[in-house]
Amino acid sequence: MPNHDRTFNFSAGPAGLPLPVLEQAQQEMLNFRGCGASILEISHRSPAFIDVLDSARDGIRQLLGANDDFEVLFLQGGSRLQFSMVPLNLLQSDTDRGNYVVTGTWSEKAHQEAANCHATDMIWSGKENGYSELPDQTDLQSLVTNDAAYVYYTSNETIQGIQFQDDLSFAVVPSVCDASSDFLSRPIDINKYGMIYACAQKNAGPAGVTIVVIRKDLLSPTLNECPGYLNYRNHADANSLYNTPPTFAVYMVDLVCQWLLNDIGGLEQMHQINREKAELLYATIDGLPDMYSGHAAPANRSLMNVTFRLPSQELTDLFLKQANDQGLTSLQGHRSVGGIRASIYNSMPPEGVLALRDFMNSFYTQNSNSR
Amino acid sequence: MPNHDRTFNFSAGPAGLPLPVLEQAQQEMLNFRGCGASILEISHRSPAFIDVLDSARDGIRQLLGANDDFEVLFLQGGSRLQFSMVPLNLLQSDTDRGNYVVTGTWSEKAHQEAANCHATDMIWSGKENGYSELPDQTDLQSLVTNDAAYVYYTSNETIQGIQFQDDLSFAVVPSVCDASSDFLSRPIDINKYGMIYACAQKNAGPAGVTIVVIRKDLLSPTLNECPGYLNYRNHADANSLYNTPPTFAVYMVDLVCQWLLNDIGGLEQMHQINREKAELLYATIDGLPDMYSGHAAPANRSLMNVTFRLPSQELTDLFLKQANDQGLTSLQGHRSVGGIRASIYNSMPPEGVLALRDFMNSFYTQNSNSR
Repeated sequence: MPNHDRTFNFSAGPAGLPLPVLEQAQQEMLNFRGCGASILEISHRSPAFIDVLDSARDGIRQLLGANDDFEVLFLQGGSRLQFSMVPLNLLQSDTDRGNYVVTGTWSEKAHQEAANCHATDMIWSGKENGYSELPDQTDLQSLVTNDAAYVYYTSNETIQGIQFQDDLSFAVVPSVCDASSDFLSRPIDINKYGMIYACAQKNAGPAGVTIVVIRKDLLSPTLNECPGYLNYRNHADANSLYNTPPTFAVYMVDLVCQWLLNDIGGLEQMHQINREKAELLYATIDGLPDMYSGHAAPANRSLMNVTFRLPSQELTDLFLKQANDQGLTSLQGHRSVGGIRASIYNSMPPEGVLALRDFMNSFYTQNSNSR
Repeated sequence: MPNHDRTFNFSAGPAGLPLPVLEQAQQEMLNFRGCGASILEISHRSPAFIDVLDSARDGIRQLLGANDDFEVLFLQGGSRLQFSMVPLNLLQSDTDRGNYVVTGTWSEKAHQEAANCHATDMIWSGKENGYSELPDQTDLQSLVTNDAAYVYYTSNETIQGIQFQDDLSFAVVPSVCDASSDFLSRPIDINKYGMIYACAQKNAGPAGVTIVVIRKDLLSPTLNECPGYLNYRNHADANSLYNTPPTFAVYMVDLVCQWLLNDIGGLEQMHQINREKAELLYATIDGLPDMYSGHAAPANRSLMNVTFRLPSQELTDLFLKQANDQGLTSLQGHRSVGGIRASIYNSMPPEGVLALRDFMNSFYTQNSNSR
């Protein structure tokens, strides 16, 4: 058990936050840096908050290597609202179509929402294989349609635990990536993206803010038929102050960026830590095939969400109960996949993964007869 | 100066929060009620968060006296998104029109956004008088059009400092009220409303959550052309878990509701306190007409935002500087109105208003020669 009686929290999201970030938020809660008021209580147009907003934006830029060709926006409404905003903004003529790569629950939902009222094509689907595999990037290239205005994909499917290992790009057609569950977990080549977005509550902050990084040339001209809040240009023109932003959530994103830059040392280092954490768990799964079987195809395994099954529901329930009793919490798999899901985002310390590995080993020893 | 080196914060929004609420949030930040994790880190589907969501919803219901004829929703996107959601959801046929009562900056913005792509009528405007006066309710009744699907109004105009003293209602046509800046500041007769909504960051919580209370019979049938997030029915059907809600902001709303119910004693008591605070300041303004002049017509004065001017910009600047030095902060009027704005929402303690009153008196004494 870590300090403060805090458990090792394997929640898929809203997920754990780095302890130093929570401690700073706690310490500053009644009087933010000499303001005489909480960060929760100051105007979004006050110099103190503008500093926070600028710092969060700069932190994102620095971590992603995003230059002035890109806008960094802080929005509300989560991925759900992005599912509508992407086609509303990026389909700019009647002949434009959105191409969707459907690799799991989240890209499926994104496609469904877009298809409700926009011109879309699902150019690949992994549904038949229970979303356990990803397409090859070269194969995808050939599936992009001639009238594609963008290719949409989800870099990490939280529920199934599969993850593209590389940044996808599609020649002249811009990619739009929902990186909600692996944003800031590894370095990316931002110049391969037309747009990348993430709701914050996995790696980047708390629920309630969505970070959008979009190439400026993709900002649409004024869209009269588009609700004002849903037009990226309105937010870009107003520097994310088109309306009152979720100030506390932006502040937390800033603290997380500072933690990544200063405590961890950047995304290369974060990626290395994340790789080591994931390898530890996958090696445990692969080493005890009588007890544990991974959901994802090995080549497509996620570094963020490790999904696996036990031989029976009884053993699964026992595993969850005993793990919980040892302070290893929120390990239940999503109801659509079942089994176990260990979400090991940036904030999960290696000690938490070691504790889970040790528990998996001892659970195997104690229960290998009851399979 | 209050404790913790906190100032008396007259910010118009995001605004002050009750100190006991901030203290509880601070105290629970690392380990929420035995969860072993912060409220910021737990799943929106966890029993601990569901308890918070249910409690916040029940708190709103209890404070407003809203029975099961109403849904209580916790959304993102602020008033801006409501400006689009209201017509998208409530204009259900091609002949329906939205009627708008434009009494200040916020209702003007709401009307503009709706008029961009929906059938609307501005049935009253106070623009000619600098939005310093409100229409009489009886006069408004006669202006409602035959094809009105709703009448939209803003109960309190934050920038101008004018406030309807009564709940408006329009016979069979439902009213839609933006109560962002006086929500939970006084009792209302909820049965006079078709819908009432508020972004939380004035009286009800932090920025990042919008509370919508809507009569169930106004929930539209499935709107295919409506972005999923913008359809109230989706949120109602999912009990505000259509997607990940802004969990921390909902938690803060719950704490504010508990503070109102348990520490203050309910909205009657809160209203009485707010009335006394406002009367103190308006009496000071009226008592020193050589120095202070109120913006709003006396009959329409807001209990939340007290707007007034000094005889010159020099005196205004001096007032702001000296007030700030005494820990009376964020008193600058909105740039469109100028002068001083003292926002005295629920969380402003009477001592803060007394301190401002004393400062206004001494400022008068010291500067009555320099007018």
